[in-house]
Amino acid sequence: MKGSPFRGKGKWAIGIDLGGTKTIVGQVDGQGKVRRKLLLPTNAPKGPASVKQAIASAVQTLLKGAGSLPAGIGVGVAGQVDARKGAVFFAPNLGWRDEPLGEDLAKATGLPVRVENDVRAATRGEWLYGAGRGCDDLICLFVGTGIGGGVVSGGRLLAGCSNTAGELGHITIDLDGPSCRCGNRGCLEALAGGWAIAQQAREWATSDPEAGGFILRMVEGQPEKITAKIAADAAKAGDPLALSLFERVAGALAAGAAGLVNAFNPCRMILGGGVIEGCPWLVKKVAEGLEERALPAALASLRVVRSRLRQNAAVVGSAALVLHPSKKT
Amino acid sequence: MKGSPFRGKGKWAIGIDLGGTKTIVGQVDGQGKVRRKLLLPTNAPKGPASVKQAIASAVQTLLKGAGSLPAGIGVGVAGQVDARKGAVFFAPNLGWRDEPLGEDLAKATGLPVRVENDVRAATRGEWLYGAGRGCDDLICLFVGTGIGGGVVSGGRLLAGCSNTAGELGHITIDLDGPSCRCGNRGCLEALAGGWAIAQQAREWATSDPEAGGFILRMVEGQPEKITAKIAADAAKAGDPLALSLFERVAGALAAGAAGLVNAFNPCRMILGGGVIEGCPWLVKKVAEGLEERALPAALASLRVVRSRLRQNAAVVGSAALVLHPSKKT
Repeated sequence: MKGSPFRGKGKWAIGIDLGGTKTIVGQVDGQGKVRRKLLLPTNAPKGPASVKQAIASAVQTLLKGAGSLPAGIGVGVAGQVDARKGAVFFAPNLGWRDEPLGEDLAKATGLPVRVENDVRAATRGEWLYGAGRGCDDLICLFVGTGIGGGVVSGGRLLAGCSNTAGELGHITIDLDGPSCRCGNRGCLEALAGGWAIAQQAREWATSDPEAGGFILRMVEGQPEKITAKIAADAAKAGDPLALSLFERVAGALAAGAAGLVNAFNPCRMILGGGVIEGCPWLVKKVAEGLEERALPAALASLRVVRSRLRQNAAVVGSAALVLHPSKKT
Repeated sequence: MKGSPFRGKGKWAIGIDLGGTKTIVGQVDGQGKVRRKLLLPTNAPKGPASVKQAIASAVQTLLKGAGSLPAGIGVGVAGQVDARKGAVFFAPNLGWRDEPLGEDLAKATGLPVRVENDVRAATRGEWLYGAGRGCDDLICLFVGTGIGGGVVSGGRLLAGCSNTAGELGHITIDLDGPSCRCGNRGCLEALAGGWAIAQQAREWATSDPEAGGFILRMVEGQPEKITAKIAADAAKAGDPLALSLFERVAGALAAGAAGLVNAFNPCRMILGGGVIEGCPWLVKKVAEGLEERALPAALASLRVVRSRLRQNAAVVGSAALVLHPSKKT
C-alpha cells in the first residue's frame, strides 16, 4: 500500500474472523472497507497457544504496513463467547473451552481486544456497513454448512440472556422432520443447511440411481463425494433431481423466514452464506415464499436482500465492534 | 374502598383491556395491583363512537371513587396500533380502521392516553409486575383462542419495524401442516391455539365415534358444540382421545417454544392464556419438551413459568405504559 491509507479517514481497526479451519485477519478502515487481509489456516490441533501466536504474528504484519496505530482488535470466533471478559466459553470446532482469547491477544499485541461470536460479528458487519446499513430492525440469516443468524431490533443487536440469541438455524419448522445435528428434529438447518442438502442429495441419488444419474456421474459414482456445492452445480445444469431438492430447500427457508419475520417484524431480511452464494436465486424464492406465508402486517415494510459483505462480513463486523463500541447489543 | 387507596403509594393509572367482545377498565396502583375494575361488553357493532363513550363513562366512574387523579390512561387493544399517535390502524375483531382512539379518549377524559397492542400490553404487565419481574430477557406466549406473544430482550419490549413484533403464534412449526387462519399453514396456532384444538377434537371425535364417545356425550351428540374447553375437561376426566390430542398440543407448543428459545435466548418463558389456564399441566410438559429440543446453551439459564397476572395482564400492562413511560420498547 502507498503511504497511509487511513489518513483523513478517521480510525481503523483490525478485524479477525477465527473459524475452525481458516482465519482471516483484516485491516478495516473507518468506512468498513477491508484494505488488506491475510488468510491463515487455523491450526487448531496444535492447541490454542499456537493459534493465538499465528494470529498475533499476522496482526504484527498488518501493523507494520499500516503507518498508524489501529483503534484496536475485534475478533469474531465460531463459538460461545463471554463478551465482557473477551473469553471463549466453548468453541467445538476449535476444541476450546474457557480460553482467555482477548486477554492473551491484548498481551501479545499491546492493543485493546474485543471478542464476540462470529455470526453476530457478521450480522454487525452487514448492519453497519453492508446490506443492512441504515436499518434498525433486521435479520441476517447465514446459510452455510450450518445455519446461523443475528437479529437487530430497535437498533440493538440482540444478545439474549446468555449471549446466544440468534440460533436461527435451530428453529423448528418440521415438527416430525429429519434429525438435526443439535439433537432436535426438524430444525431449519436439518432441511436447508449445507450438510443437510448434501445428505439429502446422497440419499435421493442412491435410492433412485436413475434419477440420480446426473449427480452420480459428477462424483464418478462415489455418493460420499456429493456435497451441497455438487448439488447446486447439478441444479444450475438443470438436473431435475437437484432442482426438486432445491425447491424443497427454498420452501424450508421460506417457512423458517416466515416464522422469523412474524416473530421479529424486521424491515430487512438479509440472506448470506455459502449456500446462498452458490444459489443466489434462493433469495428471490425466499422472498416469493414469504409473500405467501408471512403476515401482511409484517410484510408491509419488509425487503429481502442478499448479503453484501460476503466472506468479509465477520472481519468487518469484528472491526466495527472496536470502531463503534457505542453500538449497543 | 375506604379513603384513598393510593395515598403514600405514588402514582396510579387507569389500564384498559379493549377486546372484541369485552372490555376491562381497571384502576391500577403504583405496585401494579388492580384495585378496582369494571367489566363492560364491547358493543362493537354500535360503532367506535359508542365504544369510546362507554369506556369514557367507565373511566369517570373509577375517577369518582379514587380520591386522586391518575397519571393517565393506558389502553391495550386487540389490533395493530400506531403507538406514537395512539391510533388504531386495524382491529379486525372491532371492525376498526384508522381510529383515533387515544385522541378521542384524551378529549373525553382530560387525561393523557397511551395505546398499544393488547398482547404487548399483557407482556409488559407480566414483565414489570408479574412472572417476569426483574428479568431483562423473556418471552410471553399467550395460548388462547389464538396464540400471541411478546418478547423482552436486553430490557426492551421488542416492537419491530412496523410495531408488529411478537406474532409468535405464526411461527411455522410444521412445514406442510394444517391451514392456519392467517392464510399460511403449519403455524404454531394452527396446531395449539384454542380454535385449532376445538377443530381437531371435532374431527377426531366424528371420524371415530367410538373413541370420540366420551366427548360426544359431553355435547349431547352435537360435535359443533365441542370447544377447547370441552376437550380440556375431557382430558381432565381421563378420556384417552382428549389426552392424546393434548399430548399433540404439548408437543407442538414445545417445538415452537424450542425455536423461540434458540432464536431469542430468554431467561424466562412465561406461558399464559385460556388454554394454559384450562390445562396448567401444559407448562410442565412444555418445559420437559424444551429440555429435549432446545440447545443446551440456550437452556442453561432458562426457566419456564406460568403467567401470574392471568386475565389482568393487559390491564396492568396498559397502566404500566403510563406509570413507567421510561421502559423503552
